[in-house]
Amino acid sequence: MPETITIAVDALGGDFGPSVVLPGVEAALAEQPDICVLLCGPEDVVVPFAQCHERCEAVPCTQEIEMGEHPANAVRRKKDSSIVVGCRLVKEGKAQGFFSAGSTGACLAAGTLVAGRIKGVSRPALGTVLPSPVKPVVMCDVGANADCKPEYLLQFAKMATIYTRQILGVENPSVGLLNIGSEETKGSQFAQETHRLLAEQLPNFKGNCEGCDVLTGEFDIVVTDGFTGNVCLKTIEGTAKMLFGELKGVFKRNALTGLAALAVKGGLSQLKQSVSADTYGGAPLLGVKGACLVGHGSSNETAIKNGVLMAAKIVRTGVSELIAESIGSEAKKPAE
Amino acid sequence: MPETITIAVDALGGDFGPSVVLPGVEAALAEQPDICVLLCGPEDVVVPFAQCHERCEAVPCTQEIEMGEHPANAVRRKKDSSIVVGCRLVKEGKAQGFFSAGSTGACLAAGTLVAGRIKGVSRPALGTVLPSPVKPVVMCDVGANADCKPEYLLQFAKMATIYTRQILGVENPSVGLLNIGSEETKGSQFAQETHRLLAEQLPNFKGNCEGCDVLTGEFDIVVTDGFTGNVCLKTIEGTAKMLFGELKGVFKRNALTGLAALAVKGGLSQLKQSVSADTYGGAPLLGVKGACLVGHGSSNETAIKNGVLMAAKIVRTGVSELIAESIGSEAKKPAE
Repeated sequence: MPETITIAVDALGGDFGPSVVLPGVEAALAEQPDICVLLCGPEDVVVPFAQCHERCEAVPCTQEIEMGEHPANAVRRKKDSSIVVGCRLVKEGKAQGFFSAGSTGACLAAGTLVAGRIKGVSRPALGTVLPSPVKPVVMCDVGANADCKPEYLLQFAKMATIYTRQILGVENPSVGLLNIGSEETKGSQFAQETHRLLAEQLPNFKGNCEGCDVLTGEFDIVVTDGFTGNVCLKTIEGTAKMLFGELKGVFKRNALTGLAALAVKGGLSQLKQSVSADTYGGAPLLGVKGACLVGHGSSNETAIKNGVLMAAKIVRTGVSELIAESIGSEAKKPAE
Repeated sequence: MPETITIAVDALGGDFGPSVVLPGVEAALAEQPDICVLLCGPEDVVVPFAQCHERCEAVPCTQEIEMGEHPANAVRRKKDSSIVVGCRLVKEGKAQGFFSAGSTGACLAAGTLVAGRIKGVSRPALGTVLPSPVKPVVMCDVGANADCKPEYLLQFAKMATIYTRQILGVENPSVGLLNIGSEETKGSQFAQETHRLLAEQLPNFKGNCEGCDVLTGEFDIVVTDGFTGNVCLKTIEGTAKMLFGELKGVFKRNALTGLAALAVKGGLSQLKQSVSADTYGGAPLLGVKGACLVGHGSSNETAIKNGVLMAAKIVRTGVSELIAESIGSEAKKPAE
């Protein structure tokens, strides 16, 4: 294990760009003295910051991938963008991880095309720790692969198992398949085939998980295709946002409810924090070389700090190496 | 239009059976004097009730479809079950609508196999009015068809448009396609093909709707396959349940937060009510003859009452006839 951990960070990522990324990086460097950051972005942003911060090196880039661009095309065309340069640093072994709060699609494309897939992995997948106050639940895939085969979901489950064990410390995490009924005969043909495959080949598979059970903590991991997973994740976020908004209205009715708001302010803000995506600092791109992590577009300073620290933790706990061992050893097996 | 509206009601439906169905029916009969109920269920339940209630006729049945049974098999085998008998009354023209809070799968199967599909409808679909406090949003399909073709979703959108216009009074409801990005090139192959078809053939189609936008009211109707729709609906319910549960914890911390709870009790219970599935009394089975409506398993007395009244409203506003006209006229068109 290396003495220091080097993370390439995209200075441009997210809705707020360098204005939150730079303080987030500063906080991460201050919190963990074994972290070094390679800060990728425009020269006038990254050089002055690196000059005043130890363990931070500027990697000036001349291009930027915007949120609306076609991910794969942008990654192929903009070879000097902060996202492509960051992933190239991982490929070249100059960084062990990469963090960006920029375009998820571009990070996925650059992670796969530039940093590169781990041998044997069919499709890298986007995992996430769901913001549940009950207990953290890992969902995978939440958007990398809209069209999936059952075999992909078996690999997603294996990769998420390693992630959950190493990062959340759950020794033998249970896996549920996101489906529309608890019986094995329920769901689409794809869900039924996937159920059969997981039941046969995944020792920690515990059956179907319905939408209403995702946040109950019944399963440590919920595995699904990237289409359904993304809809589910964004529905959770949308429902929570809507309810907190309505709750505000309830407290604003009159002087008495306004006083009530003061009494529960602390508790409410803790609750809001516990369901916030910022707590876990990003979604890991599982199956890609190095520790590639994508932050939420709306990341604040804390989310950026947590993202950088999480990338370092993924490196420290050897997630990618364990995935390579687990999936790579299968790839070597002769076909039956 | 008939002078009275006759609704067949399953006395056995739901988690609480006759103990909530009977008072629910009583309340519906009391509220609207133009409704008649054909109450289907065990003789000892339905006969005594019908004897003491005007405009209610007992239809004794000897069988019951349990929640766990295979829907289509149960419907074929249990010809004297309350669900099959209720749908048969619709087919025979003795009732204009059917309401049950029993097994959704069995109601779907009986609606399709017994009451029968409207001519030209490829697949009947389950619609629902989503419990959003912002404004009601109709989602379709929420579970009838786990595997879909783009053409089905075009029909779901047309049927939901008629339902939304007649029941919610929205003259020209906007339709969104549940997808994982706002651009038309986003999503699975299925979602992209469906987007193209809807853009070509549905005048009120307004583009993709992400999971986080389902409850914002940006779209009056969200159309999707039954797998994704069911996951989305149950995720909304699960997230709301989890947050209200956590909120309880926030108010129970100490004496002060307990007092705060008293101040906002009314507002909170209104909010809870506004996101409750009980308000709209059930999910319509669109594309089936008559007004077939399936209530939530956890329906209380109010939900049953609202379900019976909603079935009557569907009859009164001619939803099925308008669907037959709209879809039937297409079916007659020569193939291009």
